[in-house]
Amino acid sequence: ITNKTVAIIGAGASGLTAIKCCLDEGLQPTCYERSEDIGGLWRFCENDIEGQASIYKSLTINTSKEMMCYSDFSIPEDYPNYMHNSKVMEYFRMYAKHFDLLRYIHFKSRVCSVRRHPDFHINGQWEVVAEIYGKQEAAIFDAVLVCTGHHVDAYFPLNSFPGVKKFKGELMHSREYKHSEKFQDQRVLVIGLGNSGADISVDLSHVTKQIFLSTRTGTWVVNRVCDDGYPLDVVHFTRFKNFLRHLLPAALVNLWGEKKLNSRFNHENYGIKPQHRFLTRYPIAADDLPNAIIAGRVIIKPNIKEFTERGVIFEDGSSEENIDVVIFATGYSYSFPFIEEGVIKTNGNHIPLYKFVFPPHLKRPTLAIIGLLQPLGAIMPISELQARWATRVFKGLIKLPSEDMMMADIAKKFQYNNKRYVPSQHISLQVQYVDHMDELASLSGVKPNLLNLWLTDPRLAWEVFFGPCSPMQFRLSGPGKWEGARNAILTQEKELSGLQKHEPCNHALAAVSLSIFMKVFGCFALFAVILAYL
Amino acid sequence: ITNKTVAIIGAGASGLTAIKCCLDEGLQPTCYERSEDIGGLWRFCENDIEGQASIYKSLTINTSKEMMCYSDFSIPEDYPNYMHNSKVMEYFRMYAKHFDLLRYIHFKSRVCSVRRHPDFHINGQWEVVAEIYGKQEAAIFDAVLVCTGHHVDAYFPLNSFPGVKKFKGELMHSREYKHSEKFQDQRVLVIGLGNSGADISVDLSHVTKQIFLSTRTGTWVVNRVCDDGYPLDVVHFTRFKNFLRHLLPAALVNLWGEKKLNSRFNHENYGIKPQHRFLTRYPIAADDLPNAIIAGRVIIKPNIKEFTERGVIFEDGSSEENIDVVIFATGYSYSFPFIEEGVIKTNGNHIPLYKFVFPPHLKRPTLAIIGLLQPLGAIMPISELQARWATRVFKGLIKLPSEDMMMADIAKKFQYNNKRYVPSQHISLQVQYVDHMDELASLSGVKPNLLNLWLTDPRLAWEVFFGPCSPMQFRLSGPGKWEGARNAILTQEKELSGLQKHEPCNHALAAVSLSIFMKVFGCFALFAVILAYL
Repeated sequence: ITNKTVAIIGAGASGLTAIKCCLDEGLQPTCYERSEDIGGLWRFCENDIEGQASIYKSLTINTSKEMMCYSDFSIPEDYPNYMHNSKVMEYFRMYAKHFDLLRYIHFKSRVCSVRRHPDFHINGQWEVVAEIYGKQEAAIFDAVLVCTGHHVDAYFPLNSFPGVKKFKGELMHSREYKHSEKFQDQRVLVIGLGNSGADISVDLSHVTKQIFLSTRTGTWVVNRVCDDGYPLDVVHFTRFKNFLRHLLPAALVNLWGEKKLNSRFNHENYGIKPQHRFLTRYPIAADDLPNAIIAGRVIIKPNIKEFTERGVIFEDGSSEENIDVVIFATGYSYSFPFIEEGVIKTNGNHIPLYKFVFPPHLKRPTLAIIGLLQPLGAIMPISELQARWATRVFKGLIKLPSEDMMMADIAKKFQYNNKRYVPSQHISLQVQYVDHMDELASLSGVKPNLLNLWLTDPRLAWEVFFGPCSPMQFRLSGPGKWEGARNAILTQEKELSGLQKHEPCNHALAAVSLSIFMKVFGCFALFAVILAYL
Repeated sequence: ITNKTVAIIGAGASGLTAIKCCLDEGLQPTCYERSEDIGGLWRFCENDIEGQASIYKSLTINTSKEMMCYSDFSIPEDYPNYMHNSKVMEYFRMYAKHFDLLRYIHFKSRVCSVRRHPDFHINGQWEVVAEIYGKQEAAIFDAVLVCTGHHVDAYFPLNSFPGVKKFKGELMHSREYKHSEKFQDQRVLVIGLGNSGADISVDLSHVTKQIFLSTRTGTWVVNRVCDDGYPLDVVHFTRFKNFLRHLLPAALVNLWGEKKLNSRFNHENYGIKPQHRFLTRYPIAADDLPNAIIAGRVIIKPNIKEFTERGVIFEDGSSEENIDVVIFATGYSYSFPFIEEGVIKTNGNHIPLYKFVFPPHLKRPTLAIIGLLQPLGAIMPISELQARWATRVFKGLIKLPSEDMMMADIAKKFQYNNKRYVPSQHISLQVQYVDHMDELASLSGVKPNLLNLWLTDPRLAWEVFFGPCSPMQFRLSGPGKWEGARNAILTQEKELSGLQKHEPCNHALAAVSLSIFMKVFGCFALFAVILAYL
């Protein structure tokens, strides 16, 4: 049953790889993109455009190029580890060009509705209506991949702030923030200490008179420039560390994590110590925030009690007058207004999807949501694994379990998150990077078989276990195997040591190896202690 | 012999405290300030003015407020630890107002010449000619304090760069750098990886298309946000650590320092690993530099081989074209053109001054240079101690040794620096902060007597030995004793923990105490090992 047609909605980070996965499986993709270009969130525009995701000019991605790339298309050697949004776009363009994806994209095409075909229970087909250059056109597809992301609709909770109506200054959402220049010498209040709030505060603090950053809960702050200067995700997203995390009691990991983060800067002294423990909520990455705080460029404030005409009163009784602008870095909500009612059932802030992809109660599994989760890590390789799985489900090569089993799995994940994390807006979308990648990979049969690797290719096995759990690991075997994957994995350390090109890096490599050896040694020692304890 | 008159040249960080020290000793100060305001280097001006020190708008001081304040005038509690230049100015204004210094300053008064009085060998007097609002006026003084600093004359070694004449882009010195805006989307090359070069590169990198930072030697980079988030100088400039530094072999301190700095980020991977060891040259403070490098905003380059019409070729053979601007962050040279020839003898880049203050061969010690050194630490308290000493020498309360002994001391220091440090422009001006402060304090009889303190006031002794060696330590006893000093020293930890005000800080304090205890314990353990070894 080849030649099935698939409608893909959105040509951003998820939509692009969705097209490519369709092609790999011999499906016929048609991608509808609302704007005139690819890239979605990552395409910087000078103006904030309704219905499109929006970023600011200085935005640099929080995940390293080693961990955010698609699994069979490495990012060029001379690109920096953390890429500016313009470089991310360049990478997307290279990807689209290399796999010839552009020809499948209809630009300026806004999808108005996605409805089940009258014979859906038999053929699983969908009727997609799109407005193309102002004209509505309908088409029938065998399947749909929804790749619209969850950074479009600003969550702008004005009503939660008493007195906000009398405030005479400017109120804006972080999605409207584009440049720092227009805030020159102003006094700006940023609400929300998430990645956006911290990033924008630091970015603005170079030009403003004063930044106040209001946080309700505080947060743990990690550094993108991690141990020995390696990228955060490269250091921490390894199978070895994941294994340790499962092995060790959470209390111990919390202690270790908090001690380590406090040794960079004492979160209490800096006014951002959270009530919650390290593991119970994602930390934010904000390398320059402590510098901005200790230099007084950013002043941390507690939650807002109420607004006044020209300022705010905070919950600790302190107040600030003459606030020119308030920026709500309060995140995003998401919805799928174009999808026929009843297809996606929401439960408060929770959308029950099997493995965050399939609505479990549809008679036919021919609609999948791609990229609707919040990993502590890069979304691109996750979207890719989701699309690889979904396309094979569309083809009938993989069968989904019964609705009951799917609902049970969803409920289990939901309960786990509710138990493990403190409440937050998108708590139900949180996943553990390595675990979730493996889970998706298992569904498609592309999870690396470590035992087998240790026996047949120990050098590779070593790197797969102790090295960064990079997307290439899911191209070593199974459907979609890529011959270049092994080499890409084995050379990643060399690449990482060559952050800068004009010096030889042998010592650094040796140090990394030694450090890994020490880790293994430590691991054995730990085992011994545990065994002795038992 | 009171009522002696003293001419003070310059009303910057050194000149202000020089006026105050004169008043404390009952001398009559007259301060000549070239510009229309106090502050010297620290007063930001939109334009670069010939003959005046110059800073850029975003400049934040590299030393903490605990360590850079004058010894009897604390910086307000609500000021940040690292102050923006505008805050430093506010502090100077408070200092000037509190001690009523402004009335002694003649603004818009440029000193043209400082010459020995015909009877200098008898009365030690000086004839000072100043141009005041365009009119030259002469006056006789019993002594002169030269407080003009060494950040006025740009060192701009264009001739060392082959082909620089054919370069069509803009060439400028870092002293001309004021704002980042005008460099929007440009490609800028910064030459020199000193504090200025690193600071300006990072500052610019938020707006430029690309920054290239060329370094001949590389450097070690320390963080202003140091262990547990405390300021760098507060953590490291303690008598305890100074004692350890003297005790331990340099090889060990080098290993320890380099390992620690590399654990933040591997200097080799980041392209800035120097050939020299940690202790043989001052490190720079540049917290955000690694982030800028890993995100590719700043690209590190080796020394320049030659300029081309639109770009440069580097010594590793790589080249960059389309460079819009080249900024020479190559530092400053200094001279005292207004002082009568023969008073200050220069020896290449080395100006032989007794304790960096007195020209040793003058018949009468009535001229002193204040603030002409490069400590790894704040200059303000050093200038203050110099002025306290110099004014007492002027009064005849302290006698200088013979010219031969002074020359011997100067030669010893010069040789020490040449042996200890790798060659650099201002190698002869480098001093160890705690050692040099103690040396100056001993000369004035204001060095704290630790043995005595341990016996009479152990709590204070503990803080003086293990805590930051703050300027207040030199107001505990001797001439100029300040009753507030003890309290200021005992409360500094509480202040430090209150970087941000809205949370209680008891845990942090406890942690600091515990950490100090561990250090003492470690110290004893170390002694035991050394004894056992002997």
